[in-house]
Parts: sequence; structure tokens; C-alpha cells
Amino acid sequence: MADRSRELQKLHVEAANGLLHRRAFLTSGATLAAAMTGYTLSENVAAQALTDDPWSRKQGLRVEEYGTPSAYEKHVVRTLSNPQGQPRTQHGRTPHHLLHGTITPNGLHFVISHSGNPDINPAQHKLVIHGLVRRPLVFTLDTLARYPMVTRNTFLECGGNSGLLFSSEPLQANIQAIHGLVSCAEWAGVLLSTLLEETGIDPKAKWVIAEGADSLALHRSVPLTKALDDAMIALYQNGERLMPGNGYPMRLLLPGWEGNMNVKYLRRLKLTDQPALGFYEARTYAPILPGGKAYQFYFLQEVKSFITHPSPGLQMRGPGYYEISGIAYSGNGRIAKVMVSADGGRTWAEAALQDPVLPKAFTRFRLPWRWDGQPVVLQSRAWDEGGHVQPTRAEIIAKRGQTSKPVTNPLAFPSQHYNGPSSWAVDAAGEVKNVYA
Amino acid sequence: MADRSRELQKLHVEAANGLLHRRAFLTSGATLAAAMTGYTLSENVAAQALTDDPWSRKQGLRVEEYGTPSAYEKHVVRTLSNPQGQPRTQHGRTPHHLLHGTITPNGLHFVISHSGNPDINPAQHKLVIHGLVRRPLVFTLDTLARYPMVTRNTFLECGGNSGLLFSSEPLQANIQAIHGLVSCAEWAGVLLSTLLEETGIDPKAKWVIAEGADSLALHRSVPLTKALDDAMIALYQNGERLMPGNGYPMRLLLPGWEGNMNVKYLRRLKLTDQPALGFYEARTYAPILPGGKAYQFYFLQEVKSFITHPSPGLQMRGPGYYEISGIAYSGNGRIAKVMVSADGGRTWAEAALQDPVLPKAFTRFRLPWRWDGQPVVLQSRAWDEGGHVQPTRAEIIAKRGQTSKPVTNPLAFPSQHYNGPSSWAVDAAGEVKNVYA
Repeated sequence: MADRSRELQKLHVEAANGLLHRRAFLTSGATLAAAMTGYTLSENVAAQALTDDPWSRKQGLRVEEYGTPSAYEKHVVRTLSNPQGQPRTQHGRTPHHLLHGTITPNGLHFVISHSGNPDINPAQHKLVIHGLVRRPLVFTLDTLARYPMVTRNTFLECGGNSGLLFSSEPLQANIQAIHGLVSCAEWAGVLLSTLLEETGIDPKAKWVIAEGADSLALHRSVPLTKALDDAMIALYQNGERLMPGNGYPMRLLLPGWEGNMNVKYLRRLKLTDQPALGFYEARTYAPILPGGKAYQFYFLQEVKSFITHPSPGLQMRGPGYYEISGIAYSGNGRIAKVMVSADGGRTWAEAALQDPVLPKAFTRFRLPWRWDGQPVVLQSRAWDEGGHVQPTRAEIIAKRGQTSKPVTNPLAFPSQHYNGPSSWAVDAAGEVKNVYA
Repeated sequence: MADRSRELQKLHVEAANGLLHRRAFLTSGATLAAAMTGYTLSENVAAQALTDDPWSRKQGLRVEEYGTPSAYEKHVVRTLSNPQGQPRTQHGRTPHHLLHGTITPNGLHFVISHSGNPDINPAQHKLVIHGLVRRPLVFTLDTLARYPMVTRNTFLECGGNSGLLFSSEPLQANIQAIHGLVSCAEWAGVLLSTLLEETGIDPKAKWVIAEGADSLALHRSVPLTKALDDAMIALYQNGERLMPGNGYPMRLLLPGWEGNMNVKYLRRLKLTDQPALGFYEARTYAPILPGGKAYQFYFLQEVKSFITHPSPGLQMRGPGYYEISGIAYSGNGRIAKVMVSADGGRTWAEAALQDPVLPKAFTRFRLPWRWDGQPVVLQSRAWDEGGHVQPTRAEIIAKRGQTSKPVTNPLAFPSQHYNGPSSWAVDAAGEVKNVYA
């Protein structure tokens, strides 16, 4: 016991309440064992007989044409705001507290469908590029397949994601409810700039109006500069064709920009000299701000992070060693740094970033933590390579406003683009709750 | 027409039969348009009315708790060697010709199950580390969740993948049949070295015998050096829990090593001073070589590549511009270079590699190609960062042997570890066939 206690003292404590150095276990294996065994995470098995479990005594299940998760994972699903699919908006939120890594599997990528997922026959679907172009052209999936393609990992986030944190009182909800409208995938497709080289661009063109084939003909205005930068006509999602809820058979992908602009079921791109001022840009994504004005456009999804493990709803299992882990991302580019606090933001330790750190994609951060069983408040704060940092809650509230009383309807977003901190309070019983700190 | 012809001449032809410079379209947008319009990939739409398709006139489908592909993608499935799941080996092969990118979606990751997928209750499953350790320990999913985790993209490949190419005559089969036993995913889990720090290692230990909880108790011998290098206890696959066919709830992951060694349903790791010489290592993966001897062990999946687009079964749609695209990978590390030939290996052009190029992971390569409609033979050849290159077919046959007559049963692998070239002949009608060149 005295030996172990000396070993534990070697662990470099970076910040209050047990936050260790991010490389503690890379540089010193011995101290890991010491940190672990101080609390007996694993069970000594010397005396146990090695017996067969029931599933080891019989032929297993059939291999499927298209694999699906184990029946024991039935709880790992999107939460639906409109489970009957009634004729209004449907939200499906990603269960980040039950996932790990940086890819969101296709079955669990968040979806917002304003009039359901159109059941598109890909052989008949066409993409038209028209308006202020030299020659309007129509593209089918077959013709698009012949153009040069690109692949990139990128997150997609609804401008309303994390809107519950605008509530003046912290609501009790898990990260699926709070942060479930962001996901990350590998997308493959054709750069829009490639197709615009084909059509030619009239010098008067300044905007591209992107329109979907859903029954609302959802459309958004995209500056031509973005269209010529990294905009993509996405055809594949994590290797396979887009999911129906994510725009099958093709969508506009605007890496780092407001989810709603990444128009799904893309059927038309019209080059114009003016934005369209469509429903979503004029109303939903331009809410009135505290000063009485509104942003006409707010394209960028700014730097953000949240801790997924532990997080509300996950139960801590006694004191000892844990890994704090979470997701960071920025529409500006790569994540440069994530700091973690276990005392509500007073002291901070730098987290390790999982390689590869890709621009405009999820970056997983991790920090070793020795929890002593006392109440703590966990927070993360991310910086991107452009030097941008997440605002404090006070700063984002001053810019964006808050609701005067608690919001109980998770669909009522008082404002948009919350990228302040998330604060998780861990009590002595190991329960994790959403708080403001 | 004269203008266009001059533009086309600007395209730098790198190798015979229309292989262009890999950066042709990055450096010169104008030439792309010229190359395209020379063959009118896309249709001029100026005179067309923009009308609604039927799916744009009604409410769409419901958002699902767990998303599944469009009904129009029902053909994008694994091919099964044993579709009834009878009590013998089942293979499920990945349809690489229908996918794009570097990630294999979880539903389509290849599976080989020798006695079906055991239906494991994760709350009861345990991993025991015993044998030549200081203290044997048992780990549950709950305890593993507290250890430091890592995430990495890595391919997994059966040692028998591409075995059809050992046939003395080229068999007519698509890449799903030929190369469908390799896939790539993002895996998250705990490094085995982390757990071995917990158990301690007896200095006499040289091997780790890994055993699964399937009814065969499939087991393989792993050198301790690999266990302490990058071996992982994988818990998540592309963000979600492992698929049942890929080892749910945990598997051994040995990046770059023979698929069968990446023991699924992992329940025991026994440290020993000798290998086990189990069924698979003594028989299946140690076939007799031309000289009458056999490799006792052949762990590494060496550098390899194949063209996915175009490939057998995909129909070319007339002459003009195409992108040649494929997959390269190496168990030694990163892909350094991929060369492509359109004349059966006489002249070569260097392909572009899609970023990020990650070690022991799929790398997508691409090359612009202007097909003149004449018969050609396409090949790719990959080098890894260690300087290893794919052997010619003659070289790998000399080492590994071939069947004396055509193999018609795709399950009868005459040998293992084929990493020679794949040659696709395109005829004047645009049909693509497997040939030897």
C-alpha cells in the first residue's frame, strides 16, 4: 500500500480534482498500473475456473447480407421528435454518449426531415445547374460517376444543435437531446467547382440557390465563393450511397457550414446575383437577437466541444481512474487544442487529441482522470487552428439571448448556433447532471 | 471544335491509352471542361422545363430510429457463401465495386464466421488474461470502459482474399468475389499493452494465445512483440459497438496482420512461451508451397492494390473521360505510391492519393483517364513507405503456387496471401473482364 501510494504520487496532476497529464500513461506504464490498481478496476481471476458461456456451446447466428447491430444494442438508436412521421418536421438525434471514435455510423447520423425522406428513384433523379451560367447542364448519377471525385471527413451540424443550453435554467437532458444534431462521416463525391467549370459561370453570378427534391423544395442561398471553395455534391457516406435521411441519392455538402444549407435530395443549383431569401434563411435561421436585430445569414458552425464520457445519464462506478473523452470540431478548420476542467472552469488541463486531426471533422479528445469520489464539475473548451475559442456561456448568451424561463419542449430553440461550454456536475453518488458553471 | 481539340492537346498524357497526369484537373480547370465536353458527359438542359418528379409531390418516408439504405440499394449487399447459415464456415464479401471512399460501412464489412456469430450477452461476457502473467485478471465491458482508449483506421484482410487469382486461368468474377475479403473501418478500444501493464508479464512469456467465445473457441498465436506494439481490444467499429459478425462485443485487432488472427468474441488471452499450433495456424493458413514446404506463420498482409472503378461487372458507357479509382493498403504502414497502367503493364502513370494517407488503412487512389474506345488492360501497382512493392503475378506464383486447372469453387483457396496485380481488360464495347497480363 505504501508502494502504491508512492507510485500514485508520481502521476503528474495537471489541474484540480484529479486531472492528470494527457501523456501520463504514454510516458510511464508503471504509473498506469498503479493508478488502476489503487481502485481495482479489474478482478483477479486466479481462483476462477474458465468455463464456457451458453453461446460458446452452440452454432451461432447466420451472417447477414447487410449486417445489423446485436440485439443487445437495441437502445443505441436515434431519438425521434415525430416517431409516427406525421406531416411536419422530424428530428432524429445521434446518441453520442453511447458511441466512441470520430465517425458516426450511417444508421445513427442525425437527420432533420421537414417533409419526410422522399423515396427517390436514383435512375430518374437529375441535378440541373442553370441560371447565370454559360450553358445550363443536367447531371445524372451515371454522368456524375465519371467526374473526378474527392473524399473527405466532415461534420454536419444543425444551427439549432445545443439549443437547450440557451435555457435560463439548466434542463435535465442527456447529450443526445442536447448535442444530438451533429454527426461526422466520410463523404465522397464531386466538387461543385468541377461541375461549374463544365457549365461556365456568368461574371454577374454571386450566389447559388440550392434546391432539394423534397416536397417543400427546401432551398438555401450559398455564396459563389463557398461553391468554388470546398463545396461537394456528395454521393457516398462512409463508403456506401447516402442514407435516405441524409439526402439520397445526392446532397450539397458545405464543410463547416450550417446543416440546413447542405441541401439534401439536391435537384437544382441556380446561379444568381442575389440570395433567394427563402423560408429557412429568412425565418428559422435568422432569429431575433437581444438587440432586436437578426443576422441575415450566419453560415459558419463555430468551434465547439463537449464531453461524451462521462455525461448526463451515464453512471460513474465508484472513485478511481477514468478517461474523460469527448468531441471537438470547428467549421474553420482543424482543432488546435482542447482544455478540460474538473472544477467548473477555474483550473484546466490540456487534453490529448486523437490522430488524425482533420479539418472540419470530429476530433476525439481524451484526458486521464483520477476521481476521488467528491462532487466535481467537468467542462471542455476547444480552440481551432484559426485561434478561435469557444465563448463562455455569458458571452454567447449576450450575443444570442436566452429564454426567460426554462424551455421544456426540446424542439423550441430560442436561438441558434450555441457554441458555449457544456458543464457536467458529478455528485458523490456518481450521477452526472447538466449544470451551468 | 478546333478550339476544343487544342485544349485537349494541353492535357498531359502520362502513359499509353489515355492516362492523364494525376493533377491535370487541379492545375487547369479549363482543360477539364475541354476533356469533358469532348464527349458530352452531361446534357444541355436549356430547352428542358424544370418539372417535379413524383416524389416531390408528396410527404416523404418516416425517419427511422436506426437508418437503413434506400430500397433502391437492395443490390448493395454482401455475397454469402452459406446463405442458410448451415453449421460450417460462412463468408460475407464486401461489394467494393459499388462503394466509394476508404471506410467500409458496418453493414457491408466482410465477415468470415466458422461457426456462426455467437449471440453474446455483453453484460456476461468476460475477457481473461492469464498464463505467464504476474496476476491473472478478468475484464468486463464496464471495466474496459474506464481504461485509456485509442482510435485508429485499419484494414482487415483474410489471408485467403484474392485467392481466385491463384487459378492458372483467369476466372470471370467481379471484385466482390475476387477481393471481397478485405474491409477498412475506424476501430476504437483499449491497447492490449495497457492491459498487460495491469497484469504484468512473466519474463518467460513470448507468445499470447488469443481465444474466441465462438463454439469452435477459435484461437491463434500472437507474438508478444505484436501484442505490445499496436494490438488493440477493439470495442467500437465506425463509432458504434462492433457488429455481431465482426466480433461483438470485443475482438483482438492486430493492425496489418492476417484477418483470422484478429480473434473475434475474444474471451481469453494466455501468455505462453510457445505458440499453440492451433487448427487455423497449423492447417488453413500454412498451405504447402511449391517447394513442398510451408510457412509455419505468415502474419503480415503485404502491400496490395486493385482498381475498383472500372472493374469486372461495371459497364463503361462509351469513350471519353473517366476517373480510374481504386484501393491500396499495406500491413507495413502507409501507401507511398500507386502507379496505373492502361496497356497491361508496359507504361505507367502515377495516381493521386486521397488525403489523409493513414498507416495500415485503405488509401483511395485516382487517375484521370481519357478512353478512346479501344481495348485496353488496366492494372495498378502499389508501394508502401517501407519500400515494398506488389510482386508481379509470376513472382507471387513462384512463391505461393497456383492451381493446375481453373478453380470454379470460389471457396477453394489454392494458397494464401495473393498480393500480385489485378488486370482488367476493357473491350471495345466497354465490357470489363478479369485477365492475366
